[in-house]
Amino acid sequence: MRLTPRVKEILSWYESDNPGTKANLARMLMHGKLAGTGKLVILPVDQGFEHGPARSFAVNPPAYDPHYHFDLAVEAGCNAYASVLGMLEAGASTFAGEIPLILKMNSSNSLLPKGDQPNQAVTASVKDALRLGCSAIGFTIYPGSGASNDLFEEIRALAEEAKAHGLAVVIWSYPRGGFLSKDGELAVDISAYAAHLAALLGAHIIKVKLPTDFLELPEAKKVYEEKKIDVGTLAKRVAHVKQCAFNGRRLVIFSGGNTKDKQSVFDDITAIAQGGGDGSIIGRNVFQRPRAEALEMLDKVMNILK
Amino acid sequence: MRLTPRVKEILSWYESDNPGTKANLARMLMHGKLAGTGKLVILPVDQGFEHGPARSFAVNPPAYDPHYHFDLAVEAGCNAYASVLGMLEAGASTFAGEIPLILKMNSSNSLLPKGDQPNQAVTASVKDALRLGCSAIGFTIYPGSGASNDLFEEIRALAEEAKAHGLAVVIWSYPRGGFLSKDGELAVDISAYAAHLAALLGAHIIKVKLPTDFLELPEAKKVYEEKKIDVGTLAKRVAHVKQCAFNGRRLVIFSGGNTKDKQSVFDDITAIAQGGGDGSIIGRNVFQRPRAEALEMLDKVMNILK
Amino acid sequence: MRLTPRVKEILSWYESDNPGTKANLARMLMHGKLAGTGKLVILPVDQGFEHGPARSFAVNPPAYDPHYHFDLAVEAGCNAYASVLGMLEAGASTFAGEIPLILKMNSSNSLLPKGDQPNQAVTASVKDALRLGCSAIGFTIYPGSGASNDLFEEIRALAEEAKAHGLAVVIWSYPRGGFLSKDGELAVDISAYAAHLAALLGAHIIKVKLPTDFLELPEAKKVYEEKKIDVGTLAKRVAHVKQCAFNGRRLVIFSGGNTKDKQSVFDDITAIAQGGGDGSIIGRNVFQRPRAEALEMLDKVMNILK
Amino acid sequence: MRLTPRVKEILSWYESDNPGTKANLARMLMHGKLAGTGKLVILPVDQGFEHGPARSFAVNPPAYDPHYHFDLAVEAGCNAYASVLGMLEAGASTFAGEIPLILKMNSSNSLLPKGDQPNQAVTASVKDALRLGCSAIGFTIYPGSGASNDLFEEIRALAEEAKAHGLAVVIWSYPRGGFLSKDGELAVDISAYAAHLAALLGAHIIKVKLPTDFLELPEAKKVYEEKKIDVGTLAKRVAHVKQCAFNGRRLVIFSGGNTKDKQSVFDDITAIAQGGGDGSIIGRNVFQRPRAEALEMLDKVMNILK
Amino acid sequence: MRLTPRVKEILSWYESDNPGTKANLARMLMHGKLAGTGKLVILPVDQGFEHGPARSFAVNPPAYDPHYHFDLAVEAGCNAYASVLGMLEAGASTFAGEIPLILKMNSSNSLLPKGDQPNQAVTASVKDALRLGCSAIGFTIYPGSGASNDLFEEIRALAEEAKAHGLAVVIWSYPRGGFLSKDGELAVDISAYAAHLAALLGAHIIKVKLPTDFLELPEAKKVYEEKKIDVGTLAKRVAHVKQCAFNGRRLVIFSGGNTKDKQSVFDDITAIAQGGGDGSIIGRNVFQRPRAEALEMLDKVMNILK
Repeated sequence: MRLTPRVKEILSWYESDNPGTKANLARMLMHGKLAGTGKLVILPVDQGFEHGPARSFAVNPPAYDPHYHFDLAVEAGCNAYASVLGMLEAGASTFAGEIPLILKMNSSNSLLPKGDQPNQAVTASVKDALRLGCSAIGFTIYPGSGASNDLFEEIRALAEEAKAHGLAVVIWSYPRGGFLSKDGELAVDISAYAAHLAALLGAHIIKVKLPTDFLELPEAKKVYEEKKIDVGTLAKRVAHVKQCAFNGRRLVIFSGGNTKDKQSVFDDITAIAQGGGDGSIIGRNVFQRPRAEALEMLDKVMNILK
Repeated sequence: MRLTPRVKEILSWYESDNPGTKANLARMLMHGKLAGTGKLVILPVDQGFEHGPARSFAVNPPAYDPHYHFDLAVEAGCNAYASVLGMLEAGASTFAGEIPLILKMNSSNSLLPKGDQPNQAVTASVKDALRLGCSAIGFTIYPGSGASNDLFEEIRALAEEAKAHGLAVVIWSYPRGGFLSKDGELAVDISAYAAHLAALLGAHIIKVKLPTDFLELPEAKKVYEEKKIDVGTLAKRVAHVKQCAFNGRRLVIFSGGNTKDKQSVFDDITAIAQGGGDGSIIGRNVFQRPRAEALEMLDKVMNILK
Repeated sequence: MRLTPRVKEILSWYESDNPGTKANLARMLMHGKLAGTGKLVILPVDQGFEHGPARSFAVNPPAYDPHYHFDLAVEAGCNAYASVLGMLEAGASTFAGEIPLILKMNSSNSLLPKGDQPNQAVTASVKDALRLGCSAIGFTIYPGSGASNDLFEEIRALAEEAKAHGLAVVIWSYPRGGFLSKDGELAVDISAYAAHLAALLGAHIIKVKLPTDFLELPEAKKVYEEKKIDVGTLAKRVAHVKQCAFNGRRLVIFSGGNTKDKQSVFDDITAIAQGGGDGSIIGRNVFQRPRAEALEMLDKVMNILK
Repeated sequence: MRLTPRVKEILSWYESDNPGTKANLARMLMHGKLAGTGKLVILPVDQGFEHGPARSFAVNPPAYDPHYHFDLAVEAGCNAYASVLGMLEAGASTFAGEIPLILKMNSSNSLLPKGDQPNQAVTASVKDALRLGCSAIGFTIYPGSGASNDLFEEIRALAEEAKAHGLAVVIWSYPRGGFLSKDGELAVDISAYAAHLAALLGAHIIKVKLPTDFLELPEAKKVYEEKKIDVGTLAKRVAHVKQCAFNGRRLVIFSGGNTKDKQSVFDDITAIAQGGGDGSIIGRNVFQRPRAEALEMLDKVMNILK
Repeated sequence: MRLTPRVKEILSWYESDNPGTKANLARMLMHGKLAGTGKLVILPVDQGFEHGPARSFAVNPPAYDPHYHFDLAVEAGCNAYASVLGMLEAGASTFAGEIPLILKMNSSNSLLPKGDQPNQAVTASVKDALRLGCSAIGFTIYPGSGASNDLFEEIRALAEEAKAHGLAVVIWSYPRGGFLSKDGELAVDISAYAAHLAALLGAHIIKVKLPTDFLELPEAKKVYEEKKIDVGTLAKRVAHVKQCAFNGRRLVIFSGGNTKDKQSVFDDITAIAQGGGDGSIIGRNVFQRPRAEALEMLDKVMNILK
């Protein structure tokens, strides 16, 4: 297998990484239906941890089985499958070598007391990622939370260890907590800042939510208006977020959020493609649909991105 | 000794574990009267820590002696005996090789100030488990507690170390604290979530309480009703919890709670058996009865499960 | 020197310990006037830390000198001398080989702000105990305190290290803080629970205060009354506490508390002997008396216990 | 290359450092247009972390690209380029050997909840600095903050590790938080104290803001007035701060603050030169101007300092 | 060089220390004008950290230079020079071998928020002390502070490491915080307690302030009155504090406090000599005077102590 010129170009952005990490990035970029295009579609399944099993899987009962998700990701030709420790342990051997894996290192859950310091528990180690044959670790930060400095220090240590062992680092950057308003969590200035923070923290792949055209911080709003930064369409906002990730020199993928009708999903993906986004991480919209429908949807998603 | 097909099937669920851990799981599954059936009856004695010695043992004074419980578990043909550091140190040599042991790693006590952040103290190490010849470590998490993320991070570290040393991991998952109501602690949506969290944290064996048909979380209640998840009988609830443990691919055992009349115990066990539960962990109902009566009860319990 | 049958029996209780730890237990049990009897009288001098030097030593000024206490313990034929880091460093070489030493690892002091989370500072290490030639480490826990889980986790780590290096572990179990009433600190249900907790935490020797017949916890009170546990005399209470220490399979010694008249001391010791207690740890009542009087008192105490 | 006498003199101040650290100090002092003069102009780019990408770079969009800043610093002939982990990872290989690098080890951000305990997250390690080929680590302390003791302990550990590995240490000393007034943050007594603290903590290069003639602490004010310490002009204040850095035996550079008109910048630099300051760290005033204008400005700045 | 009988006697008090630590104690006791007398005069310069540079040095501007203090201590024939990391780094090489050094390991500063939990930041390591050629580490504890247990645990670890590496340990014991009154900080019962705590924590040299005849703690006051402990003169109080330091078997030196007229200084020193104190640690009264005057004063101080 030869890397495509586009994948080689992407790898060139990660100029400080060792060959092991570059190989794992290449493994994800050269796998599945989008292999070689530089685009990524990743299946993430951490809903069970976040919202509990019935809310996640009752709508599509075969999804209670960890093997279901490995199989779905392989069959759909996703670039990687991302999940938490127990889920990966339950299938990593059966599906060894069939799809790159991302071990999600920290998780939140719906039973936690609410507060202005949202946080996550670290539930896996870099050694776990290595023994399970993963290509990358995943980690969520909550910019804005009173616990965000702790989260930054945790990913600092985990990313250093992961990179030293040839793994790639994926950061989920989800602003929340502190003084952030509910609208602000999806505001384009905040999303762009969130993507930038993830890049500064050393992420290879950055995952943010698709932003709205709301502007949260007064100081930022002034700049967006004075400099006439165009955030009027979703595609423009995707392009702005990508620019804020080292002028595009970092992979940025966008998440779909909760289940919605198919056309909305395709519209989102089209905007990502038009804005130069690097792909999508799409969970509930996939595994909460019947398998055949999910495969058909993913096929269409990948065709849009290709 | 050859493993039975059922035990081989169970071991196949733990596909990411090393041979040492699989051997220790097999050791428990192939021991005692239920050997080879895939069912488990475990004797746990941590009541002294939780409620004090007189409340635990005065009703049956021979039980003040740590040897009493080892002997009882051996005689009854339990799959394993679980207790805290001091209790195991006091008999592990005398009963070496007679029954698999589970070292309970953390404990709470009745003298602790109450609050919304229930927690436990870690009172043993993986090295302790190894030097005492144990097959597994046990650990309690309190989903819902403000201290739950700390508990998750503690078991993450202990489980990683235990698995690396060929031990199995048993998680007691007991929701409490935070915004959980008293009824919610036993609600079926919460119990199922608790079992799922334990599975995601990497438990080999999950211990939860038998759930009621109460539904605690409004978002979950909606799903249970829309999807018509049948939780009308105890057996159905057991089956649902088992489904939430990786579609049944994890061992789930249920605890009996405080002392009650024998028929209630047998009814509970019958429901576990009907619902496809993997067995029971039964403490006070055993050691707070006279020895002969306890042995007779355990025999009946095992016959129901067999 | 041959161990006596009684000492051999006592050592048999500690069946999970390595020969080094057993040898150190034997060293204490085979030393002094009570050598071989299985009884222990230990001189503890941590009053200076707890209450300051003048309150501790002004009544008997030679006691300002650390050598005084070593010499007194040797001369009286105590089984061991227990003190804090600085005190042991000041005499361990002069008196090397003349008496077994216990290094008290944590201490409180009278200048600390009061609160419901009483705690102690760890002021020595296991390495200190080894370099000073000690036979055991000593550690205070405060069951009931909001800091008790922290204390339990500290002694867990220290005890593991001590045992691995062939030292014995002595736990001072002093209930206080949290919701405990002043009377409750000495209540017999609480003392028995405190002794049990120390045993569960892996102590070889447990030190508690002599309990009153008060019952603190309503749930416990019910059991004591229903089961007619006899706590009407001090001797009965000593016997009950000893039963709660693994049915007597752990050494339990009782402390004398603040200075009182000699007859009260002898009455206490007589009750300990009658109740089957394993001895006494007696500090202020000894070093706050003139040397000759102290020696005479200790001689009588030992004769009662013999 | 031979060191100039001035650089040799400066190195002689760091008499306790190993040759590796001295070589890295020399590397910065012998690089760029000011090579050999003993003066330093450093380009720092951590604005993206502190204020977000749009507020930092929208005014000059090429600055979104990490390579832009490396290139600018090289082209301008700065002594060093300082930035955070992700920024350095994105260009350290392309520009390897072209300019000394300073890895900024901790960072704050604008989404953090406000409070009287301002703090920063540690986002890089000494190993990161070594693998990226840096000459120094940079670290911000907030004297006055309730978190300042934590910050001091963090830099203590990082500086020890950095020095042992032959790196130099740059401390940004920015008083804020606690009882400090807004005016006090720039008060000359506070700035001088801040510089002194950085020196005492072992910094090789100290960065403070240019102080005003305000005096914050009453006890200090009394001394400044009694001893007639002349703080009437900016140059005098620079000289006083430099005196407070070990009587001038530590390199002290001053930051420019937010963007202002060019003449103000040149006036500041002139005062630094007149007061005997060792240079300037100048970020926003450079990268928020068009490249040609920035290069012209830096050239003038260096000519003033030369 | 032969040790004098008095120095040999002093070394005999430290019977548990290794030869390395004894040699470092001897190094200090055999250096300077008081060499061999068993008396100590130490120059400490941590005022810059505590009160800022101008308040410390403006009265005598040459003192801004770290070399000034090394030189002064050497010239005056002090036994040792004590200062913080940056100050020692700035001169340890120039003055290597000319005077024993004490590295002050923790420090407070005047910009910290006030509160009832006064604390200090650890700003140096034992490795720093070794690489700088020091003979001892210095550490401040605040008995009474809500942070005192943390301070005790910090010095425990540092002292263990220092002793294992052959360094001596000097503890500054300064009661403050918690329920202590302002008068209580200097009360003789509190000072004596503070000295005793430092001894118990394993200090070789204890530094306390000269106490007043105030008695702070009611329980202690009762004892002082009943036992007629004579604290009526400064010399008697010095003798009492020395007695509380293991009956005189630990070196206790007294600090002079803020600048005062010369006669007051000499009166203090005379009382120290009469009370059997082991010397003085005298900073501001020295370096805040012109050099000639300071040397003259120190000469007189040493003559009084000799």
